[in-house]
Amino acid sequence: MTQPLRIALAGLGTVGGGVIRLLDENGALIARRAGRPIEIVAVSARDRSKDRGVDISRFEWVDDTTALASRDVDVVVELVGGSDGPALTLARSALGAGKGFVTANKAMIAHHGLELAEAAEKAGAALKFEAAVAGGIPVIKGLREGAAANEISRVYGILNGTCNFILSKMEAEGRDFAEVLAEAQALGYAEADPTFDIDGIDAAHKLSILASIAFGTQPAFADVAASGIRHVLAADIAEAAALGYRVRLLGVADHGAGGLFQRVHPHLVPISHPLAHVTGATNAVVAEGNYVGRLLFQGAGAGDGPTASAVVADLIDIARGEFGPAFAMPSSALLAQGAADSGERRGRNYVRFAVADKVGVLAEIAAAMRDAGVSIESLIQRGASGDGSVLVAIVTHEAPERAVAQALERLRGSQSLTGQPLWMHILE
Amino acid sequence: MTQPLRIALAGLGTVGGGVIRLLDENGALIARRAGRPIEIVAVSARDRSKDRGVDISRFEWVDDTTALASRDVDVVVELVGGSDGPALTLARSALGAGKGFVTANKAMIAHHGLELAEAAEKAGAALKFEAAVAGGIPVIKGLREGAAANEISRVYGILNGTCNFILSKMEAEGRDFAEVLAEAQALGYAEADPTFDIDGIDAAHKLSILASIAFGTQPAFADVAASGIRHVLAADIAEAAALGYRVRLLGVADHGAGGLFQRVHPHLVPISHPLAHVTGATNAVVAEGNYVGRLLFQGAGAGDGPTASAVVADLIDIARGEFGPAFAMPSSALLAQGAADSGERRGRNYVRFAVADKVGVLAEIAAAMRDAGVSIESLIQRGASGDGSVLVAIVTHEAPERAVAQALERLRGSQSLTGQPLWMHILE
Repeated sequence: MTQPLRIALAGLGTVGGGVIRLLDENGALIARRAGRPIEIVAVSARDRSKDRGVDISRFEWVDDTTALASRDVDVVVELVGGSDGPALTLARSALGAGKGFVTANKAMIAHHGLELAEAAEKAGAALKFEAAVAGGIPVIKGLREGAAANEISRVYGILNGTCNFILSKMEAEGRDFAEVLAEAQALGYAEADPTFDIDGIDAAHKLSILASIAFGTQPAFADVAASGIRHVLAADIAEAAALGYRVRLLGVADHGAGGLFQRVHPHLVPISHPLAHVTGATNAVVAEGNYVGRLLFQGAGAGDGPTASAVVADLIDIARGEFGPAFAMPSSALLAQGAADSGERRGRNYVRFAVADKVGVLAEIAAAMRDAGVSIESLIQRGASGDGSVLVAIVTHEAPERAVAQALERLRGSQSLTGQPLWMHILE
Repeated sequence: MTQPLRIALAGLGTVGGGVIRLLDENGALIARRAGRPIEIVAVSARDRSKDRGVDISRFEWVDDTTALASRDVDVVVELVGGSDGPALTLARSALGAGKGFVTANKAMIAHHGLELAEAAEKAGAALKFEAAVAGGIPVIKGLREGAAANEISRVYGILNGTCNFILSKMEAEGRDFAEVLAEAQALGYAEADPTFDIDGIDAAHKLSILASIAFGTQPAFADVAASGIRHVLAADIAEAAALGYRVRLLGVADHGAGGLFQRVHPHLVPISHPLAHVTGATNAVVAEGNYVGRLLFQGAGAGDGPTASAVVADLIDIARGEFGPAFAMPSSALLAQGAADSGERRGRNYVRFAVADKVGVLAEIAAAMRDAGVSIESLIQRGASGDGSVLVAIVTHEAPERAVAQALERLRGSQSLTGQPLWMHILE
């Protein structure tokens, strides 16, 4: 076991550079822990000459990224990104050649993870993607191994650092979404095209991976109901705070006889819950097991250092020979479970309306709720938003989601509403 | 790999019963995850006839616990307890016979872990003890594997659920230690002889195991400076709260050129820190790595369900063939690092004096601090304790611990003090 583990590295962006720096700086310690050195031997990226702050002249340069799989290496590390294209070609060819494959690519694993897991098992090779979910937090390992003795009833958490950064800043400074997003973009905390983060797609990729490992089901990204934080107002955060909650974009998955439920949505989190205290770009994941109870994993969800930490942790597992089926069980044992009907779910809800400041509006809303069988726990009408409309925030008693949807349907097109209502679920 | 993993189970207390129930209830799921069934075949305990709420008649009964190692099994699970005696005899004989060994016994691992790791490596057998630290939380795995790419600068956390339960209750209800302890004992949250918990010995066992894995050093329980929570008053908790802190019993370990530092002591934790929000019997561990940053693992630190979850997670690792050196690297690679001189450490401190209500006392305390070179950030004199003495609480600016110790030494035997001062460190 003193032969080095030889690595081909595809992609030399910030994470790729981080992996090189990490192996340089911590290499001796890693060799003690892994039982042998981990050595990069070949690299590939779009631009050979770009200054990355690390010396790459010592590695073999390969122009064609997908050709890395044919080098004399043990593991291919993919940090190129994209659910298809070169990343997927490289994954297929690396596993097909019997090499280990390590990736931070959540989109590719969410879309093609099952196929790749089958290929890895057929080849007896490692497929690992700790960095794909929640950055540096070892939550894939926590579910696949740490909580493996449990029937997991629910897994949920803060899976997108950009959204949590924005919500925390809105909360701390009382400012609205668009303004804080612009600032986050200027600071580099949000991308120029923030759609994947802001609209919950990135969190949905991650949630579908977590759900598969937690429940023993095939990854089902297409079944995640995802929405984001674009429509959350500073006023919503203030109302939530007055009621004892904080607003967090949560990915939530559970499963039962009715099927697999997966949703990414802004939620009201009780102030007594650990997730209410997760601020900034931090990620946190909760798993609820029938023996272990509630487990929480928290840490940095992105950034070159944390992501490199997770990539190299996967490499250490491979160097140690401590790996097995990627989704915690052989891919043939994963169940193809249909999506649950969310209409049957019962819970408490926050619904906020922007309404015209005129007689009868409250009565109209209250009647719609009553007619749909939704009982109101509290109602606050306060202030006026920028366009002169008034905000009405309702918290419902426990009700089936179908009933809440029906109430909103009844109000659709009402002249009293000046905008789309915002519906947030309350985390129990 | 479809051969069952055969288990001999020593100890049928609450945790042993939990392991049996867990394997009964989750067995099919575990077989999917582990790739093969996990089956108990032999058991041993002190009393064969005791009703444990589980059917043990289906297992071979072995009168002599230490004889379990000679049964035809793959793994021996030890839940007997005690750092020496039958537990240690069983560990030695199981590993000597080349069988895997899984235990929840923190005292034995803290005292004899190195010897047992050597025996396991010699035999090529698994030695695993996830349940020995922080109950159901997979923190051994988190450090050994999840954070393995990092140089860990510090590991610390809430490692004793009984103490955290008592401190949380003192905090919530403003009551003093002795009263809350008595109630915790009546409720079964604290043992009749609570010494190991209350005086920090249990947390010290756990800390020495975490430190070894985090830093690549030999377990050094004897070098842990441990004290407990007996001397924390409700008034200390109230003063800490007024200053923006909560009082938590923390195990803290770090290492550097000066050696290995390990301490269990009540600390002031800033309200902005996640550990300040850990209440009740929950445990939480933080590891700080040079690439991953701050990782937090939180969950149930004790109880039959969570502990059984950790024991069976170890068994699943073994069933999968995913195991290696117990302390993250071969025992021969673990460094024998001496204990650090805590006098050189710099930090902010909380020191509370119980003093006589008379002229000149404050001047005497202030002079002692000044003469030792300790600068005072704030001083509060408030109220009177039950015996009529007055409490003076000081927060120091950053100072070397030696200087604070010198100031306390100067005040030793002073007629002004009506009791021992309480010194708590402030977590940075």
